[in-house]
Amino acid sequence: MTSERRKFWGWGYESEVLRADEITALEDTYAKRFGLSAFQVTPTPRSEDISLRMSRVAVPSSLTAICSTDHFERLLHSYGKSFFDSARVFARDFRNPPDVVALPRSEADIVSILDWADSVDAVVIPWGGGSSVVGGVEPPRTDRPVVTLDLRYLSGVVEIDTTSQAARIRGGTYGPALEGELKSSGLTLRHFPQSFEFSTLGGWIATRGGGHYATLYTHIDEFVESLRVITPAGTLESRRLPGSGAGPSPDRMFIGSEGTLGIITEAWMRLRPRPTFRASSTARFKDFYRAAECVRAIAQAHLYPANCRLVDADEAHINGAGDGTSSILVLTFESADRPQEPGMQRALEIVRTYGGEFDPQASRGEAAQRKGAAGQWRDAFIRMPYSREVLTPRGIIVETFETAITWDRFPHFHARVKAATEQAIREVTGKPGLVTCRFTHVYPDGPAPYFSFHAAGDQGRLVDQCWAIKIAASDVLNKLGGTITHHHAVGRDHRRWYDRERPELFAQGLIAAKKRLDPKGMLNPGVLFDPE
Amino acid sequence: MTSERRKFWGWGYESEVLRADEITALEDTYAKRFGLSAFQVTPTPRSEDISLRMSRVAVPSSLTAICSTDHFERLLHSYGKSFFDSARVFARDFRNPPDVVALPRSEADIVSILDWADSVDAVVIPWGGGSSVVGGVEPPRTDRPVVTLDLRYLSGVVEIDTTSQAARIRGGTYGPALEGELKSSGLTLRHFPQSFEFSTLGGWIATRGGGHYATLYTHIDEFVESLRVITPAGTLESRRLPGSGAGPSPDRMFIGSEGTLGIITEAWMRLRPRPTFRASSTARFKDFYRAAECVRAIAQAHLYPANCRLVDADEAHINGAGDGTSSILVLTFESADRPQEPGMQRALEIVRTYGGEFDPQASRGEAAQRKGAAGQWRDAFIRMPYSREVLTPRGIIVETFETAITWDRFPHFHARVKAATEQAIREVTGKPGLVTCRFTHVYPDGPAPYFSFHAAGDQGRLVDQCWAIKIAASDVLNKLGGTITHHHAVGRDHRRWYDRERPELFAQGLIAAKKRLDPKGMLNPGVLFDPE
Repeated sequence: MTSERRKFWGWGYESEVLRADEITALEDTYAKRFGLSAFQVTPTPRSEDISLRMSRVAVPSSLTAICSTDHFERLLHSYGKSFFDSARVFARDFRNPPDVVALPRSEADIVSILDWADSVDAVVIPWGGGSSVVGGVEPPRTDRPVVTLDLRYLSGVVEIDTTSQAARIRGGTYGPALEGELKSSGLTLRHFPQSFEFSTLGGWIATRGGGHYATLYTHIDEFVESLRVITPAGTLESRRLPGSGAGPSPDRMFIGSEGTLGIITEAWMRLRPRPTFRASSTARFKDFYRAAECVRAIAQAHLYPANCRLVDADEAHINGAGDGTSSILVLTFESADRPQEPGMQRALEIVRTYGGEFDPQASRGEAAQRKGAAGQWRDAFIRMPYSREVLTPRGIIVETFETAITWDRFPHFHARVKAATEQAIREVTGKPGLVTCRFTHVYPDGPAPYFSFHAAGDQGRLVDQCWAIKIAASDVLNKLGGTITHHHAVGRDHRRWYDRERPELFAQGLIAAKKRLDPKGMLNPGVLFDPE
Repeated sequence: MTSERRKFWGWGYESEVLRADEITALEDTYAKRFGLSAFQVTPTPRSEDISLRMSRVAVPSSLTAICSTDHFERLLHSYGKSFFDSARVFARDFRNPPDVVALPRSEADIVSILDWADSVDAVVIPWGGGSSVVGGVEPPRTDRPVVTLDLRYLSGVVEIDTTSQAARIRGGTYGPALEGELKSSGLTLRHFPQSFEFSTLGGWIATRGGGHYATLYTHIDEFVESLRVITPAGTLESRRLPGSGAGPSPDRMFIGSEGTLGIITEAWMRLRPRPTFRASSTARFKDFYRAAECVRAIAQAHLYPANCRLVDADEAHINGAGDGTSSILVLTFESADRPQEPGMQRALEIVRTYGGEFDPQASRGEAAQRKGAAGQWRDAFIRMPYSREVLTPRGIIVETFETAITWDRFPHFHARVKAATEQAIREVTGKPGLVTCRFTHVYPDGPAPYFSFHAAGDQGRLVDQCWAIKIAASDVLNKLGGTITHHHAVGRDHRRWYDRERPELFAQGLIAAKKRLDPKGMLNPGVLFDPE
C-alpha cells in the first residue's frame, strides 16, 4: 500500500488531480451546456484551515497504538464520496467528524475496539475504502462518541485454493491489492466497480456492490463462498460450500448489511481464470427505447455478455463518446476457455434485428475495446470520480442514482423518472439541466438503469439544491416500483425510500436479529434501520 | 387437479403402482445383490385398518368448511416420503397424526386458520406436496394440537408478464399444473425436482429445492423475483425487482425458511422460453475420480450445461444403465435461442482430455437423450420414488443423502463418507451393503454429491437400522466440512448436524427474527431451530 495521503476533499491520492487541459475541457462542456460565461471557483480546502470539534472520548492507553485522534485522519473519515459530501467539503462543513479513527491490525484488535466502544457507549462505523455515495460511513448525529473503524490494515489474500478456484481474502483489501496478489495464480475475482481502486472487498460485500459483469454475476453476492464476521455478540464464520440448501443462507443475512450487523473480516471468494478470449463491439441506435428492447432480447437469449452497457445519446455525448444523436451499446464477451466470437455474432444478429448499427470490422478483441466510442466511454468512466472535485467548487451539481425495474414497466418508468428529475432541476435552479441514463447491469426480467443529472447550482445552496432534486427523483422512482438502489446501497441517504420499499415485517425480523447481534445498537446506527 | 386419492403409504396416486414385472426385476436385483433367496413381504396397510388418536381439538363451526378431521386426510398428512416415513407406514405406526387438516381456499382462509390456531395454542405445519424426505412436514411430538395446513387449493398461475418473462404463481401449485398453465405462453420455469409431480412451488421455495439445471441455476432461489408470505404477525410482500442492492435480500430470509417464518402464498417467478435447441451426450469413464476431475473442468470452463450428471458405476448399474464397470456422465445443453452443438463440442473436447469415452454419432438432439444409458437413467430416475413402497415391505433399506463440498476436499471427502456408510451398514445389518454416488449439481468451486445406500435390513428394525447408518454417514460428512443438505432441506431429521454446521450467531439472529414474526412459535416447531 502506498504511503501517500488520500485526498480528504476528493477522489484518490493527493497527487492525482485532473490536468489543466482536462479542467478546461470540463469547464467548456458545462459552460456551453448551461450558458455560463465564467466560473467562480471555491478554493480547495486545506487540512490546516479546518478546525474540528474536540474528540469527545479519550482513547485508553491500551489502544493508543491502533486508535487515532489525528486531525487529518478525522477529516478523511468525515465523509464518503457523494456530491453531498463534496459540497460539504468545499463548504468547509466538518461539523460532525468521528471522534476516533481506529486502525486495527488484527481480529483481536477489532474485538478490543468493540469492547472499549461498548464500555464507553460509543458508536462504531466500519470503514472500507470510504467510497460510499449514500452516507453509509459518515458519523450519525448523536451524543455518543463515534469511532470509525478503518480496516485498511486487515488486508491481503491469505490463501488460494487453485483446485476450487477460490481464495480467502481479508475484508480490508483494496481492489488493486486483491487482484495484484491473485495475479500469479492466474485467477481473478474480476469485481470492478467504478470505485475499484479505492474500495475494499469487505465494503463490496457489506453493500452488495455491483461489479464488472453486466449480466449473470451482477453483484458481489454470488462470488461469496463463505464469510467471517465479528459482531458485538461474538465472531461467526460460515462454511466454505459451493452450494447449500440448509435453511436460509447465513451469508445472505450479512451481504448487504452495511456494517449494521457485524464487521466482515474475511471471505472466501469464488474466482475464475483470467480471461484470454475476448470479443467486443459497439452499436448505435437512433432510439433509446428501441435500444433497450434490443438489450432485453440479448438478456433473454441468455448470452451472458460480460459487458452490455447501453448509454443514452446525451450521456455518451457529455462523456466525449458520440455526437449526441445516438445511444451507444457496448458489448463484450470474455472467457478463459474458448473464443467468444460465436456469442458476439449471435448478439450482433439481435442488434441488427433491432436496427442497431455497427461496424462488423471493429468487432474483434481487446484492441477494439480500447478505442472508438467504447474506449472513450471507458476512459471517461475511470476519470469521472476525479471530475467532481473540479465541478463542485464551480457550482456544478453532478449526481447519480441507480435503480432496477422489470421490463414491462421500463419505458414508462424511465420517461417519468427522467421528466420528474428534469422538472425538479428547473424548479430548483431556475434553469434546465441534463438528465441522462445508462444500463449498468441487465437481467432477463429487467434492466438496472443508472441516471446521472447535471445542473448549474448556486454556491452556498448546493447541498439543498441537489437534495431537492434527489427527493423528487427518488419519490417517483419509489412510487413506480423501482428499487432505491441497485448497487450503491442504502446508507443514511436512502433511508426514507428504503423504508417504503422494504416489507415492514422483514424490517421487523432484521431489527430483531440486529438486537441479538448488537444489543446496544453500536454498529452504524441509522443505516438501514433505527436500532431499538 | 385429479380427484383421485394420493397414496398414504407411498408415492403418487393409488392407481399408480409398479407393474408385476418391475417388482420382479427389483426383487431379482436386490436378491442377487444381497444373496437373499426369498422375501417376506409386509402387506400394504389399508386406511380402514389403522386407528388414529382422536383429534385433540374441536374445529369451530366457522372453519368446518376448510378444516377437516377426516381419517384419510389425517393419515395422508402424517408423514413425508423418506425411508423412515415408509418404514413407519408399513409398521402401521401412526401414533402422531395431525389433529386437523386445514384446506384453505384463499389467503383470508389462511389468516382465519392462523387466528384460530393462535387462540387454541395449536401448532401449524405448512404442507405443499408432502414430499419432504427430512421430516419437514410431520407433526412434532407436542401436547399442543397440530394443524396441518395443506395449500393444494391455493393453486394456479395468476398472471404472466411475457415482456419480463415472469409469472405470479400461487404457492400451492403442483409442478404439472404450473408448467401446464404456462404452456400457452411459451414460457417455462423448468424446475424439475424428482418430486416434480407431487410437490409445489411454495414447497420448492420454502426448502430451497434443487431443480432441473445442473449448473448456474441449481436451486429455486435465483428464479424468485418476489414473494408474498403470511406470518402470524401479518402479511408481507416484496417488490418485483430484477435485482437490488437495498440491504440484505428480504426474499432470502424466507427462501429456505421451511415453514418456520411464514406461509408462502404467492411468488413472482422468473421464466424463460421453452428450449427448442438441445444437444446431449453420454460419456463413460473407467475411474470415478477422473470423471469428477472432468466435471470440474467443465464447470470451471463456465459452459453451463443444463444437465451435467455424473453417475458412478454401481449406481448406473443398479438402475439398469451400464454394466457396472464405468461411471457415466450425461451432458445436455439447451436453449431457446441458438444451436447448442458448439457448447457440447467444447465439453466433449474436455471429456476427451480426461479420458472419457463417447460415441460422437450419439451426441445430437432430443432423440439421443431418450435412449441409451442416458435414457435408461432418466426412466429409472422417474420410477425411483415408486420403488420404495415395494422395497420397504421386503426389508430393503434404500435411502439417500446429498451434500456439497469444494473440489479441493472432494476425493478424500467422498472416500471417507462412502467408507463410513459402508462400514455402518456392515455393523448394523451384519452384511455388506451398497453405497453409490452421483453428482446432481456442480459448481465451479465444487460438486453436490448425492449418495444412495442400499442394505438388507431386518423387518421390525428398519427405522433404527437406517437411522444408525444415516448418523454414521452424516457425522463424517459434517465433520469433513460438507453441508448436511444441498437441496433436500433440514426438516427435523437433519437438525443435529445443521446445528453444528450453522454459525451459532446466525442461528441467534434467525431465532430472534422468528420470535418477531411468530411470537408463539406456532409455525413448524422443531424444524431448523427450537423457537424460544
